[in-house]
Amino acid sequence: MRIGILTGGGDCPGLNAVIRAVVRKATASGDEVVGFRDGWRGLLEDDAVPLDLAAVRGLLPRGGTVLGTSRTNPYALEGGPERVLGCLAAHGIDALVPVGGEDTLGVAAKLADSGAGVRVVGVPKTIDNDLDGTDYTFGFDTAVGVAMEAIDRLHTTGDSHHRTLVVEVMGRHAGWIALHAGMAGGANVVLVPERPFDVDAVVAHCLHRFESGYSPIVVVSEGARPADGELVTSTGQTDAFGHVRLGGIGAALAAVLEERTGRESRAVVLGHVQRGGTPSAFDRVLATRFGLAAVDAVQAGLSGVMVALRGTDVVPVPIAEATARLKLVPLERYAEAEVFFG
Amino acid sequence: MRIGILTGGGDCPGLNAVIRAVVRKATASGDEVVGFRDGWRGLLEDDAVPLDLAAVRGLLPRGGTVLGTSRTNPYALEGGPERVLGCLAAHGIDALVPVGGEDTLGVAAKLADSGAGVRVVGVPKTIDNDLDGTDYTFGFDTAVGVAMEAIDRLHTTGDSHHRTLVVEVMGRHAGWIALHAGMAGGANVVLVPERPFDVDAVVAHCLHRFESGYSPIVVVSEGARPADGELVTSTGQTDAFGHVRLGGIGAALAAVLEERTGRESRAVVLGHVQRGGTPSAFDRVLATRFGLAAVDAVQAGLSGVMVALRGTDVVPVPIAEATARLKLVPLERYAEAEVFFG
Amino acid sequence: MRIGILTGGGDCPGLNAVIRAVVRKATASGDEVVGFRDGWRGLLEDDAVPLDLAAVRGLLPRGGTVLGTSRTNPYALEGGPERVLGCLAAHGIDALVPVGGEDTLGVAAKLADSGAGVRVVGVPKTIDNDLDGTDYTFGFDTAVGVAMEAIDRLHTTGDSHHRTLVVEVMGRHAGWIALHAGMAGGANVVLVPERPFDVDAVVAHCLHRFESGYSPIVVVSEGARPADGELVTSTGQTDAFGHVRLGGIGAALAAVLEERTGRESRAVVLGHVQRGGTPSAFDRVLATRFGLAAVDAVQAGLSGVMVALRGTDVVPVPIAEATARLKLVPLERYAEAEVFFG
Amino acid sequence: MRIGILTGGGDCPGLNAVIRAVVRKATASGDEVVGFRDGWRGLLEDDAVPLDLAAVRGLLPRGGTVLGTSRTNPYALEGGPERVLGCLAAHGIDALVPVGGEDTLGVAAKLADSGAGVRVVGVPKTIDNDLDGTDYTFGFDTAVGVAMEAIDRLHTTGDSHHRTLVVEVMGRHAGWIALHAGMAGGANVVLVPERPFDVDAVVAHCLHRFESGYSPIVVVSEGARPADGELVTSTGQTDAFGHVRLGGIGAALAAVLEERTGRESRAVVLGHVQRGGTPSAFDRVLATRFGLAAVDAVQAGLSGVMVALRGTDVVPVPIAEATARLKLVPLERYAEAEVFFG
Repeated sequence: MRIGILTGGGDCPGLNAVIRAVVRKATASGDEVVGFRDGWRGLLEDDAVPLDLAAVRGLLPRGGTVLGTSRTNPYALEGGPERVLGCLAAHGIDALVPVGGEDTLGVAAKLADSGAGVRVVGVPKTIDNDLDGTDYTFGFDTAVGVAMEAIDRLHTTGDSHHRTLVVEVMGRHAGWIALHAGMAGGANVVLVPERPFDVDAVVAHCLHRFESGYSPIVVVSEGARPADGELVTSTGQTDAFGHVRLGGIGAALAAVLEERTGRESRAVVLGHVQRGGTPSAFDRVLATRFGLAAVDAVQAGLSGVMVALRGTDVVPVPIAEATARLKLVPLERYAEAEVFFG
Repeated sequence: MRIGILTGGGDCPGLNAVIRAVVRKATASGDEVVGFRDGWRGLLEDDAVPLDLAAVRGLLPRGGTVLGTSRTNPYALEGGPERVLGCLAAHGIDALVPVGGEDTLGVAAKLADSGAGVRVVGVPKTIDNDLDGTDYTFGFDTAVGVAMEAIDRLHTTGDSHHRTLVVEVMGRHAGWIALHAGMAGGANVVLVPERPFDVDAVVAHCLHRFESGYSPIVVVSEGARPADGELVTSTGQTDAFGHVRLGGIGAALAAVLEERTGRESRAVVLGHVQRGGTPSAFDRVLATRFGLAAVDAVQAGLSGVMVALRGTDVVPVPIAEATARLKLVPLERYAEAEVFFG
Repeated sequence: MRIGILTGGGDCPGLNAVIRAVVRKATASGDEVVGFRDGWRGLLEDDAVPLDLAAVRGLLPRGGTVLGTSRTNPYALEGGPERVLGCLAAHGIDALVPVGGEDTLGVAAKLADSGAGVRVVGVPKTIDNDLDGTDYTFGFDTAVGVAMEAIDRLHTTGDSHHRTLVVEVMGRHAGWIALHAGMAGGANVVLVPERPFDVDAVVAHCLHRFESGYSPIVVVSEGARPADGELVTSTGQTDAFGHVRLGGIGAALAAVLEERTGRESRAVVLGHVQRGGTPSAFDRVLATRFGLAAVDAVQAGLSGVMVALRGTDVVPVPIAEATARLKLVPLERYAEAEVFFG
Repeated sequence: MRIGILTGGGDCPGLNAVIRAVVRKATASGDEVVGFRDGWRGLLEDDAVPLDLAAVRGLLPRGGTVLGTSRTNPYALEGGPERVLGCLAAHGIDALVPVGGEDTLGVAAKLADSGAGVRVVGVPKTIDNDLDGTDYTFGFDTAVGVAMEAIDRLHTTGDSHHRTLVVEVMGRHAGWIALHAGMAGGANVVLVPERPFDVDAVVAHCLHRFESGYSPIVVVSEGARPADGELVTSTGQTDAFGHVRLGGIGAALAAVLEERTGRESRAVVLGHVQRGGTPSAFDRVLATRFGLAAVDAVQAGLSGVMVALRGTDVVPVPIAEATARLKLVPLERYAEAEVFFG
């Protein structure tokens, strides 16, 4: 059997661990693996590389993806799906393992339904942890760890200068990274996209923290927004349609908090550091298990499924079920973080 | 309400995070918390300390337990249970939250059944991850991370010297740390207590690894043993009843592998470094949620239960159910690691 | 003898280690230590705290400064120096150990010259490593380490997305952090304030790197500037007097590189994470030795000096000599980094 | 010009950084580099590999040495030096850069004196930091950092269990790692080979520490020994000629301290973890500068020298001078650590 593999969408620690596991498991069974470069682009433009044991040596601890990635969507291109199927046929691919998020898995589901005879088994990937159908995705734990270490470091500089520090983390639609990094880092406020925030309450928490003799850390998802839609200082330098777009919610919020609390405030935007670099142990194990389970599913003749973590088990679930809706932070999880506000 | 808390058994990253969460949550509800020092010893000898917000400030990232710990078992002492109940009554304790492993939770279950009217809600703790009834316990992820970082470091020194490195990790009865650290660290062999090992097979994996131009890393649980009960070199310097007892399975196995493979071998025993120090993000979040859920359970009037992780939820389960048997590494999980042997 | 201590200017990993060492060494000699809060403000407003062994327990690994810090300068205030001397007299201070940068040490030098009879022994502190008179200052190694770890992480995400990543690090006037972090992180271009840069050359290095199949990392000091004074995209969105001021040199340079190379570019601004958190081993040892040497100097009756690292020795040098001019990156050190450009 | 390079003796973080820097610098000047495998063995057995830019890509952060290493000494073999010179001639080598410790540099000095016309420029390497003639060697800072992180972790587990922890670190003849890791980790006792220790004093320090409510950490070099030559428990299980040889000084000392203090004691032997893995920023910069300076020296026509760090400069010094005697921990440096004993 010949198995194709590609990685699409934003990169994520653990992608290389998936690739390695797929190749190790397939090779041990006598199957061959072909990698396609830069996501679906590799299948559209026939950019392929054979993946043997030597090709995946040393990949486990490496961040990113040796296959490269892109946001190319074949269904958005005239004749795209046909070129993909043609390329798969040309390489004699029996089964395809696309590793990616909502978009990549959406294409995977359509391909599986296309009747083309290629089995498709997806591996879910989202650093934001917002894919439904799986308890966790790899990369998330690493991102939370990087953010937590940064917050650990920021506590002492904040306290020394009696300053508010606003830490902006990834999360456009779901606040999982902010929630977990904030809980793990001992944040005094956590703001997530799921809960438009009340600036007055944030100010009150910050002032309460200063009164205790320590300085507040506010962790904010990049997609969090104020409930009334505005973040304005008295000089108008900052608003939701100006500074926020330029500098992000972190910078805007820091400016407003500085004015409202009367204490210096600074923003730190963690950015791409959260998604690069070596995966945590949790993510290496999860990504490896996902890779192994994908080969298991392929070898069992499944298609139209993705592998998913349920409790401690990795199981196949229908792709459609998993991508039907975003997995958001529920109220009760946010309430856990609120216990530590102020 | 007055809530007592104690930590028993071996220490574990995350214990302080549990204590902090219990105090924060209880205080927010108007309840009071009293800590007892060094596990059940604190209740036997009335060694108590009030825990308010100031007492738990800064505890989240700190390893170990500020309450201290011991292996004292009141049921093993004449009049022990009576003294414990007397001490609880003297402090006006309505509910007790013992944080510990099999032994501590066993005492907790008996206390809950004693009809003394004190609610008992346990928090499971085992760095070895071998408590049934919960998907994971805090401390385990940190230990795996520490071991993985050591293995990451050892790969390059092994390769440079063309040496076998045997890494002994914690795990007397269950091989979870070896399994996860080995998978995460790219070990070439993983040996666990659940599967007595065949020395010939280990030798073959090591030789195969050397043939590929790299040097083998063997990860072994401290409780792993050879299937035929002996590890003997030709000079008799090493055997299961001599060197193993003195120097541990790691040293014994390294000696045998050196003789059998004809290549230098060295053992590294990670020891207490695995259980000390700041918890990982995963463990800080899990420990915090366990602490919050324990107070929830207490406030809901539950007793005889412990909090447990099931998927992404923290739920109360009967203590007895959770401690009925050890959670061992199942065959199918070990088979995942075997894909990467050699 | 009674020794006063204060920490001024920006915070830095290692300040607490200095405080601890001063207290431990002085206490062992039977001397007493008094801390003044928030730099010179504590002496102006008589905000003091006795520092005994218990007060410094656990301080070694902690970032920031438990004494707090500020940029208050008594010589900029009417009657400031008199109030400082009055406060020192009121507390019976025989010797003062100000820990700080150019400003703090400048005040220290004036106080030493004031004829007031208080010995003054400074401890140099600058995370930017730009104080002359000492080979290194504590905090610098930690900052370089934090920046290097971020760069290590960014390599894989850059390569996966075929993107240029611009990493902005601290350094307004001197490029030491950029130089060392860039060399340690394998940066493809390093830009420092001492050498106004040629955008064409940066573009050429980036394109050369892409041609080799990898993606460029550009490390830039916050104070680096283009030789011709402008960074402008064709749409005018970015220029040296607009975007640079708002978003910093990193964001401006990324925008220009994206347009000029035709490849996606992203900026990462490391910010306060570089100056917070636990010090590296190098910085803990250096800060500890500085603290010990300051007490040695005080006990030897010296004044008007600061402690300095020369090779492997810590020696007293005149404060004036050390602060006469900024220590900049010399041409030959920058040339070392250039070997690895492109 | 053709430059040969080899790495000998124990491996060390930074060796790959030296190799990369030599190749990058030489290639930029139009020179060629040939690597010899496993130290002098590669020259004895003509095991060579051309090193171009592609060969050294990605090497900077990698621990160990891609060239491999051995302790082979050509001057200990009949006809060894002749074979080495013959191999150098066969490969047209104009200059050789041996990277290693006392033994490797000793061979280098003899080769330089042999009149064979090959320039020899050594690069000093010793993880123990015990080579005279250079302020520091690469690898040392990394080893100290690894040991310090372990000690940081051990403090909390020691305190939780009220146990003495003995941490054995590298250092057969010189105690630099113990001294720096102990100072950086806040050890309560540091024992080095240069100062045979008094067990009674160690016991007293431990008891004093317990009295303060905390648990002692004792850091001991593997080569440290008691002043009276014996470490014996009352049962005779441990002595300087039995247990010490088997289990090392750490285990022996822990056994004696347990008996003498009446408190549980445990030993942790850090072992090879200290010498493997990615180098610290300090070591990456130092190793890179050493590699660059070695090529500078070769290109300047020097021979019989090694590169050395003096203050912040990297300069050539006669090999003989540098290897004439071991660099030991001087009394005044040890006295710094003693301030924090107990």
